[in-house]
Amino acid sequence: MENIATTYVPEPAISRLPWYLACVSRLRAQGVEYVSSTAISNQLNVDASQIAKDLSYLNIKGKTRIGYEVKELEQGLLDFLGFHREHNAVMMGVGSLGAALMADSGLSRYGLHIVAGFDVKPELVGTAPGGKPIYHISELPQRLRELDAEIAVIAVPFESAAEVAELCVQSGVKALWNFSPFHIKASPGVTIQNTSIYAHLAVMYNRMLK
Amino acid sequence: MENIATTYVPEPAISRLPWYLACVSRLRAQGVEYVSSTAISNQLNVDASQIAKDLSYLNIKGKTRIGYEVKELEQGLLDFLGFHREHNAVMMGVGSLGAALMADSGLSRYGLHIVAGFDVKPELVGTAPGGKPIYHISELPQRLRELDAEIAVIAVPFESAAEVAELCVQSGVKALWNFSPFHIKASPGVTIQNTSIYAHLAVMYNRMLK
Repeated sequence: MENIATTYVPEPAISRLPWYLACVSRLRAQGVEYVSSTAISNQLNVDASQIAKDLSYLNIKGKTRIGYEVKELEQGLLDFLGFHREHNAVMMGVGSLGAALMADSGLSRYGLHIVAGFDVKPELVGTAPGGKPIYHISELPQRLRELDAEIAVIAVPFESAAEVAELCVQSGVKALWNFSPFHIKASPGVTIQNTSIYAHLAVMYNRMLK
Repeated sequence: MENIATTYVPEPAISRLPWYLACVSRLRAQGVEYVSSTAISNQLNVDASQIAKDLSYLNIKGKTRIGYEVKELEQGLLDFLGFHREHNAVMMGVGSLGAALMADSGLSRYGLHIVAGFDVKPELVGTAPGGKPIYHISELPQRLRELDAEIAVIAVPFESAAEVAELCVQSGVKALWNFSPFHIKASPGVTIQNTSIYAHLAVMYNRMLK
Protein backbone atom coordinates (compact mmCIF):
# COMPACT_ATOMS: atom_id res chain seq x y z
CA MET A 1 0.00 0.00 0.00
CA GLU A 2 1.22 3.42 -0.86
CA ASN A 3 2.01 5.70 2.05
CA ILE A 4 0.41 9.05 1.23
CA ALA A 5 2.69 10.92 3.64
CA THR A 6 5.74 10.09 1.51
CA THR A 7 4.18 10.96 -1.87
CA TYR A 8 5.05 14.51 -2.80
CA VAL A 9 1.90 16.22 -4.01
CA PRO A 10 2.44 19.56 -5.82
CA GLU A 11 0.95 22.61 -4.12
CA PRO A 12 -1.42 23.52 -7.00
CA ALA A 13 -2.94 20.02 -6.78
CA ILE A 14 -3.41 20.25 -3.00
CA SER A 15 -4.96 23.69 -3.43
CA ARG A 16 -7.56 22.29 -5.81
CA LEU A 17 -8.56 19.40 -3.56
CA PRO A 18 -10.68 21.56 -1.19
CA TRP A 19 -12.68 22.73 -4.24
CA TYR A 20 -13.47 19.11 -5.09
CA LEU A 21 -14.33 18.52 -1.43
CA ALA A 22 -16.73 21.48 -1.39
CA CYS A 23 -18.29 20.21 -4.60
CA VAL A 24 -18.78 16.59 -3.49
CA SER A 25 -20.00 17.61 -0.02
CA ARG A 26 -22.66 19.65 -1.76
CA LEU A 27 -23.60 16.68 -3.96
CA ARG A 28 -23.72 14.37 -0.93
CA ALA A 29 -26.05 16.83 0.86
CA GLN A 30 -28.25 16.73 -2.27
CA GLY A 31 -28.39 12.93 -2.07
CA VAL A 32 -26.26 12.29 -5.17
CA GLU A 33 -24.49 8.89 -5.02
CA TYR A 34 -22.06 8.92 -7.94
CA VAL A 35 -20.24 11.71 -9.74
CA SER A 36 -17.98 11.75 -12.79
CA SER A 37 -14.91 13.95 -13.18
CA THR A 38 -16.78 15.56 -16.10
CA ALA A 39 -19.65 16.57 -13.78
CA ILE A 40 -17.18 18.03 -11.25
CA SER A 41 -15.40 19.73 -14.15
CA ASN A 42 -18.63 21.42 -15.29
CA GLN A 43 -19.27 22.81 -11.83
CA LEU A 44 -15.75 24.05 -11.11
CA ASN A 45 -14.32 25.05 -14.47
CA VAL A 46 -11.32 22.73 -14.03
CA ASP A 47 -10.38 20.21 -16.77
CA ALA A 48 -11.79 16.73 -16.14
CA SER A 49 -8.36 15.21 -16.89
CA GLN A 50 -6.79 17.52 -14.29
CA ILE A 51 -9.37 16.41 -11.70
CA ALA A 52 -8.70 12.73 -12.43
CA LYS A 53 -4.95 13.34 -12.12
CA ASP A 54 -5.30 15.28 -8.86
CA LEU A 55 -7.51 12.58 -7.34
CA SER A 56 -5.04 9.85 -8.37
CA TYR A 57 -2.64 11.25 -5.71
CA LEU A 58 -5.20 10.09 -3.15
CA ASN A 59 -5.32 6.63 -4.66
CA ILE A 60 -8.98 7.21 -5.49
CA LYS A 61 -10.11 5.94 -8.86
CA GLY A 62 -13.50 6.34 -10.48
CA LYS A 63 -15.32 3.45 -12.14
CA THR A 64 -15.84 3.48 -15.90
CA ARG A 65 -19.23 4.96 -16.87
CA ILE A 66 -20.23 5.37 -13.17
CA GLY A 67 -17.59 7.74 -11.82
CA TYR A 68 -16.64 8.24 -8.20
CA GLU A 69 -18.77 7.17 -5.25
CA VAL A 70 -19.63 10.52 -3.64
CA LYS A 71 -19.41 9.43 0.02
CA GLU A 72 -16.12 7.57 -0.51
CA LEU A 73 -14.64 10.51 -2.41
CA GLU A 74 -15.69 13.00 0.31
CA GLN A 75 -14.19 10.78 3.02
CA GLY A 76 -11.00 10.23 1.01
CA LEU A 77 -10.56 13.98 0.51
CA LEU A 78 -11.24 14.78 4.17
CA ASP A 79 -8.70 12.16 5.29
CA PHE A 80 -6.05 13.22 2.81
CA LEU A 81 -6.47 16.93 3.55
CA GLY A 82 -6.23 16.39 7.30
CA PHE A 83 -9.46 18.29 7.94
CA HIS A 84 -10.65 15.46 10.20
CA ARG A 85 -7.59 15.59 12.46
CA GLU A 86 -7.52 18.06 15.33
CA HIS A 87 -4.77 20.69 15.25
CA ASN A 88 -4.34 23.13 18.11
CA ALA A 89 -3.15 26.60 17.17
CA VAL A 90 -2.39 29.92 18.82
CA MET A 91 -3.30 33.32 17.37
CA MET A 92 -0.47 35.83 17.37
CA GLY A 93 -2.03 39.30 17.30
CA VAL A 94 -5.67 39.74 18.30
CA GLY A 95 -6.50 42.85 16.24
CA SER A 96 -9.49 42.95 13.93
CA LEU A 97 -8.34 40.16 11.59
CA GLY A 98 -6.88 38.02 14.41
CA ALA A 99 -10.02 38.30 16.54
CA ALA A 100 -12.10 37.48 13.48
CA LEU A 101 -10.13 34.36 12.65
CA MET A 102 -10.34 33.27 16.32
CA ALA A 103 -14.11 33.60 16.12
CA ASP A 104 -14.42 31.91 12.69
CA SER A 105 -16.15 28.61 13.34
CA GLY A 106 -15.30 27.63 9.76
CA LEU A 107 -11.69 26.95 10.74
CA SER A 108 -12.61 24.40 13.41
CA ARG A 109 -14.73 22.58 10.83
CA TYR A 110 -11.45 22.17 8.95
CA GLY A 111 -9.62 20.81 11.98
CA LEU A 112 -7.98 24.02 13.19
CA HIS A 113 -8.71 24.89 16.81
CA ILE A 114 -7.36 28.25 17.87
CA VAL A 115 -7.09 27.71 21.61
CA ALA A 116 -5.56 31.01 22.76
CA GLY A 117 -4.45 34.42 21.57
CA PHE A 118 -1.28 36.42 22.22
CA ASP A 119 -0.99 40.18 22.01
CA VAL A 120 0.95 43.09 23.51
CA LYS A 121 -2.00 45.41 24.20
CA PRO A 122 -2.69 45.71 27.96
CA GLU A 123 -6.45 46.09 27.34
CA LEU A 124 -6.55 42.69 25.59
CA VAL A 125 -4.21 40.64 27.79
CA GLY A 126 -6.14 38.80 30.51
CA THR A 127 -9.46 38.81 28.65
CA ALA A 128 -11.01 35.66 27.16
CA PRO A 129 -13.38 36.48 24.26
CA GLY A 130 -15.44 33.40 23.37
CA GLY A 131 -13.76 31.56 26.26
CA LYS A 132 -10.32 31.71 24.61
CA PRO A 133 -7.68 33.33 26.84
CA ILE A 134 -5.42 36.11 25.58
CA TYR A 135 -1.90 36.16 27.02
CA HIS A 136 0.95 38.63 26.68
CA ILE A 137 3.13 37.70 23.73
CA SER A 138 6.15 37.24 26.02
CA GLU A 139 4.37 34.26 27.62
CA LEU A 140 4.41 32.26 24.37
CA PRO A 141 7.45 30.04 25.11
CA GLN A 142 6.02 28.67 28.39
CA ARG A 143 2.34 28.61 27.31
CA LEU A 144 2.85 26.77 24.02
CA ARG A 145 3.50 23.39 25.63
CA GLU A 146 0.58 23.57 28.09
CA LEU A 147 -1.72 24.55 25.21
CA ASP A 148 -0.45 21.57 23.18
CA ALA A 149 -0.33 23.80 20.10
CA GLU A 150 2.00 23.28 17.15
CA ILE A 151 0.63 25.92 14.76
CA ALA A 152 0.89 29.69 15.14
CA VAL A 153 -1.45 31.89 13.11
CA ILE A 154 0.16 35.29 12.58
CA ALA A 155 -2.03 38.38 12.26
CA VAL A 156 0.20 41.06 13.77
CA PRO A 157 1.00 44.33 11.95
CA PHE A 158 3.74 43.90 9.35
CA GLU A 159 6.19 45.90 11.46
CA SER A 160 6.15 43.13 14.11
CA ALA A 161 5.75 40.08 11.88
CA ALA A 162 9.44 39.21 11.54
CA GLU A 163 10.06 39.38 15.30
CA VAL A 164 6.88 37.46 16.17
CA ALA A 165 7.69 34.73 13.64
CA GLU A 166 11.18 34.40 15.13
CA LEU A 167 9.68 34.08 18.64
CA CYS A 168 7.27 31.39 17.41
CA VAL A 169 10.07 29.39 15.79
CA GLN A 170 12.26 29.66 18.91
CA SER A 171 9.30 28.58 21.04
CA GLY A 172 8.98 25.39 19.00
CA VAL A 173 5.97 25.79 16.70
CA LYS A 174 6.00 23.42 13.73
CA ALA A 175 4.03 25.63 11.35
CA LEU A 176 3.37 29.32 10.82
CA TRP A 177 0.23 30.43 9.03
CA ASN A 178 1.02 34.01 8.15
CA PHE A 179 -1.78 36.47 7.38
CA SER A 180 0.38 39.55 7.83
CA PRO A 181 1.46 41.36 4.66
CA PHE A 182 5.07 40.66 5.62
CA HIS A 183 6.71 37.72 3.84
CA ILE A 184 8.27 35.53 6.51
CA LYS A 185 11.55 33.80 5.70
CA ALA A 186 11.68 30.01 5.84
CA SER A 187 13.28 28.26 8.83
CA PRO A 188 14.53 24.65 8.79
CA GLY A 189 11.89 22.21 10.05
CA VAL A 190 9.13 24.83 10.14
CA THR A 191 6.32 24.88 7.58
CA ILE A 192 5.41 28.38 6.48
CA GLN A 193 2.17 29.18 4.71
CA ASN A 194 1.86 32.77 3.61
CA THR A 195 -1.76 33.83 3.09
CA SER A 196 -1.51 37.48 2.28
CA ILE A 197 -5.07 38.48 1.56
CA TYR A 198 -3.77 41.92 0.57
CA ALA A 199 -1.71 40.34 -2.23
CA HIS A 200 -4.93 38.83 -3.58
CA LEU A 201 -6.54 42.24 -3.31
CA ALA A 202 -3.69 43.69 -5.40
CA VAL A 203 -4.13 41.04 -8.09
CA MET A 204 -7.90 41.71 -8.19
CA TYR A 205 -7.44 45.48 -8.51
CA ASN A 206 -4.91 44.98 -11.30
CA ARG A 207 -7.16 42.60 -13.26
CA MET A 208 -10.13 44.99 -12.89
CA LEU A 209 -8.23 47.61 -14.90
CA LYS A 210 -8.21 45.40 -17.99
CA MET B 1 5.46 57.09 -21.35
CA GLU B 2 4.40 53.55 -20.72
CA ASN B 3 0.80 53.04 -19.68
CA ILE B 4 0.92 50.65 -16.74
CA ALA B 5 -2.73 49.65 -17.17
CA THR B 6 -1.98 48.07 -20.54
CA THR B 7 1.16 46.17 -19.48
CA TYR B 8 0.28 42.62 -18.56
CA VAL B 9 1.95 41.82 -15.27
CA PRO B 10 2.01 38.12 -14.32
CA GLU B 11 0.07 37.20 -11.16
CA PRO B 12 3.12 35.85 -9.24
CA ALA B 13 4.86 39.21 -9.76
CA ILE B 14 1.82 41.19 -8.57
CA SER B 15 1.53 38.89 -5.57
CA ARG B 16 5.11 39.65 -4.55
CA LEU B 17 4.73 43.45 -4.81
CA PRO B 18 2.81 43.79 -1.50
CA TRP B 19 5.74 42.03 0.23
CA TYR B 20 8.10 44.64 -1.13
CA LEU B 21 5.64 47.34 -0.07
CA ALA B 22 5.48 45.97 3.48
CA CYS B 23 9.28 45.83 3.54
CA VAL B 24 9.89 49.36 2.27
CA SER B 25 7.11 50.85 4.44
CA ARG B 26 8.90 49.33 7.42
CA LEU B 27 12.21 50.82 6.27
CA ARG B 28 10.59 54.22 5.72
CA ALA B 29 9.15 54.12 9.26
CA GLN B 30 12.70 53.36 10.48
CA GLY B 31 14.00 56.44 8.66
CA VAL B 32 15.95 54.53 6.00
CA GLU B 33 16.37 56.58 2.79
CA TYR B 34 17.79 54.12 0.24
CA VAL B 35 17.50 50.38 -0.14
CA SER B 36 19.10 47.92 -2.57
CA SER B 37 17.35 44.91 -4.07
CA THR B 38 19.95 42.82 -2.19
CA ALA B 39 18.83 44.30 1.14
CA ILE B 40 15.16 43.61 0.29
CA SER B 41 16.21 40.13 -0.82
CA ASN B 42 17.86 39.42 2.53
CA GLN B 43 14.73 40.40 4.41
CA LEU B 44 12.24 38.54 2.26
CA ASN B 45 14.05 35.47 0.97
CA VAL B 46 13.32 36.41 -2.66
CA ASP B 47 16.16 36.54 -5.22
CA ALA B 48 17.49 40.07 -5.75
CA SER B 49 17.29 39.60 -9.54
CA GLN B 50 13.63 38.61 -9.19
CA ILE B 51 12.94 41.75 -7.15
CA ALA B 52 14.63 43.96 -9.75
CA LYS B 53 12.62 42.27 -12.51
CA ASP B 54 9.32 42.63 -10.64
CA LEU B 55 9.97 46.31 -9.92
CA SER B 56 10.82 46.97 -13.58
CA TYR B 57 7.10 46.41 -14.38
CA LEU B 58 6.44 49.58 -12.39
CA ASN B 59 9.03 51.49 -14.35
CA ILE B 60 11.00 51.96 -11.14
CA LYS B 61 14.75 51.57 -11.46
CA GLY B 62 17.34 51.64 -8.71
CA LYS B 63 20.55 53.65 -8.96
CA THR B 64 23.87 51.85 -9.18
CA ARG B 65 25.52 51.44 -5.73
CA ILE B 66 22.70 53.44 -4.05
CA GLY B 67 19.62 51.38 -4.81
CA TYR B 68 16.03 52.56 -4.69
CA GLU B 69 14.86 55.69 -2.92
CA VAL B 70 12.61 54.27 -0.17
CA LYS B 71 9.88 56.94 -0.27
CA GLU B 72 9.66 56.90 -4.06
CA LEU B 73 9.54 53.11 -4.12
CA GLU B 74 6.79 53.00 -1.48
CA GLN B 75 4.74 55.57 -3.39
CA GLY B 76 5.29 53.78 -6.70
CA LEU B 77 4.16 50.47 -5.21
CA LEU B 78 1.08 52.03 -3.57
CA ASP B 79 0.09 53.69 -6.84
CA PHE B 80 0.66 50.61 -8.96
CA LEU B 81 -1.15 48.30 -6.54
CA GLY B 82 -4.19 50.57 -6.36
CA PHE B 83 -4.11 50.63 -2.55
CA HIS B 84 -4.45 54.43 -2.62
CA ARG B 85 -7.64 54.40 -4.70
CA GLU B 86 -10.97 53.97 -2.95
CA HIS B 87 -13.00 50.90 -3.90
CA ASN B 88 -16.48 50.36 -2.47
CA ALA B 89 -17.46 46.77 -1.84
CA VAL B 90 -20.37 44.78 -0.45
CA MET B 91 -20.04 41.74 1.82
CA MET B 92 -22.13 38.77 0.76
CA GLY B 93 -22.75 36.65 3.85
CA VAL B 94 -22.23 38.16 7.28
CA GLY B 95 -21.34 35.00 9.22
CA SER B 96 -18.22 34.80 11.37
CA LEU B 97 -15.72 35.31 8.53
CA GLY B 98 -17.86 37.90 6.71
CA ALA B 99 -18.46 39.95 9.86
CA ALA B 100 -14.76 39.72 10.62
CA LEU B 101 -13.72 40.99 7.21
CA MET B 102 -16.28 43.82 7.46
CA ALA B 103 -14.70 44.86 10.76
CA ASP B 104 -11.09 44.48 9.53
CA SER B 105 -9.69 47.99 9.36
CA GLY B 106 -6.69 46.55 7.51
CA LEU B 107 -8.73 46.27 4.32
CA SER B 108 -9.63 49.96 4.24
CA ARG B 109 -5.93 50.78 4.61
CA TYR B 110 -5.55 48.92 1.31
CA GLY B 111 -8.33 50.87 -0.38
CA LEU B 112 -11.21 48.43 0.12
CA HIS B 113 -14.25 49.92 1.84
CA ILE B 114 -16.94 47.40 2.67
CA VAL B 115 -19.96 49.68 2.81
CA ALA B 116 -22.78 47.18 3.47
CA GLY B 117 -23.49 43.52 4.09
CA PHE B 118 -26.07 41.15 2.60
CA ASP B 119 -27.41 38.05 4.30
CA VAL B 120 -30.53 35.86 4.45
CA LYS B 121 -30.75 35.53 8.24
CA PRO B 122 -33.73 37.54 9.63
CA GLU B 123 -31.82 38.31 12.87
CA LEU B 124 -29.05 40.03 10.86
CA VAL B 125 -31.08 41.90 8.25
CA GLY B 126 -31.88 45.45 9.37
CA THR B 127 -28.98 45.69 11.83
CA ALA B 128 -25.93 47.90 11.22
CA PRO B 129 -22.85 46.65 13.11
CA GLY B 130 -20.12 49.29 13.08
CA GLY B 131 -22.54 51.60 11.23
CA LYS B 132 -22.63 49.37 8.12
CA PRO B 133 -26.16 48.30 7.18
CA ILE B 134 -27.07 44.67 6.51
CA TYR B 135 -29.74 44.08 3.86
CA HIS B 136 -31.53 40.98 2.70
CA ILE B 137 -29.61 39.33 -0.13
CA SER B 138 -32.60 39.76 -2.48
CA GLU B 139 -32.10 43.55 -2.26
CA LEU B 140 -28.67 43.38 -3.92
CA PRO B 141 -29.70 44.36 -7.48
CA GLN B 142 -31.35 47.66 -6.43
CA ARG B 143 -28.91 48.50 -3.57
CA LEU B 144 -25.69 48.00 -5.52
CA ARG B 145 -26.04 51.20 -7.54
CA GLU B 146 -26.98 53.43 -4.59
CA LEU B 147 -23.98 52.01 -2.67
CA ASP B 148 -21.71 52.78 -5.64
CA ALA B 149 -20.01 49.40 -5.13
CA GLU B 150 -18.32 47.39 -7.87
CA ILE B 151 -16.74 44.64 -5.78
CA ALA B 152 -18.57 41.82 -3.96
CA VAL B 153 -16.73 39.93 -1.24
CA ILE B 154 -18.21 36.45 -0.90
CA ALA B 155 -18.19 34.71 2.47
CA VAL B 156 -21.36 32.63 2.28
CA PRO B 157 -21.38 28.87 2.99
CA PHE B 158 -20.16 26.82 0.02
CA GLU B 159 -23.67 25.49 -0.62
CA SER B 160 -24.83 29.00 -1.55
CA ALA B 161 -21.67 30.33 -3.20
CA ALA B 162 -22.58 29.47 -6.80
CA GLU B 163 -26.04 31.08 -6.55
CA VAL B 164 -24.76 34.18 -4.74
CA ALA B 165 -21.96 34.65 -7.29
CA GLU B 166 -24.52 34.41 -10.10
CA LEU B 167 -26.71 37.04 -8.40
CA CYS B 168 -23.71 39.36 -8.00
CA VAL B 169 -22.75 39.02 -11.66
CA GLN B 170 -26.35 39.65 -12.79
CA SER B 171 -26.52 42.68 -10.51
CA GLY B 172 -23.50 44.17 -12.27
CA VAL B 173 -20.50 43.77 -9.95
CA LYS B 174 -17.16 44.03 -11.73
CA ALA B 175 -15.19 41.81 -9.38
CA LEU B 176 -15.85 38.94 -7.01
CA TRP B 177 -13.47 38.30 -4.13
CA ASN B 178 -14.40 34.80 -3.08
CA PHE B 179 -13.51 33.52 0.41
CA SER B 180 -15.91 30.59 0.28
CA PRO B 181 -14.37 27.16 -0.27
CA PHE B 182 -16.40 26.87 -3.47
CA HIS B 183 -14.50 27.57 -6.69
CA ILE B 184 -16.55 30.09 -8.64
CA LYS B 185 -16.58 29.81 -12.42
CA ALA B 186 -15.37 32.75 -14.48
CA SER B 187 -17.87 35.07 -16.19
CA PRO B 188 -17.01 37.36 -19.12
CA GLY B 189 -16.08 40.86 -17.95
CA VAL B 190 -15.99 39.91 -14.27
CA THR B 191 -12.72 39.57 -12.36
CA ILE B 192 -12.74 36.63 -9.96
CA GLN B 193 -10.21 36.29 -7.18
CA ASN B 194 -10.50 33.06 -5.23
CA THR B 195 -8.96 33.31 -1.77
CA SER B 196 -9.73 29.99 -0.23
CA ILE B 197 -8.02 30.17 3.12
CA TYR B 198 -9.00 26.52 3.67
CA ALA B 199 -6.94 25.50 0.63
CA HIS B 200 -3.93 27.14 2.28
CA LEU B 201 -4.75 25.26 5.46
CA ALA B 202 -4.72 22.01 3.47
CA VAL B 203 -1.31 22.80 1.96
CA MET B 204 0.07 23.64 5.42
CA TYR B 205 -1.23 20.39 6.95
CA ASN B 206 0.24 18.40 4.08
CA ARG B 207 3.66 20.03 4.36
CA MET B 208 3.70 19.48 8.14
CA LEU B 209 3.62 15.72 7.57
CA LYS B 210 6.98 15.76 5.78
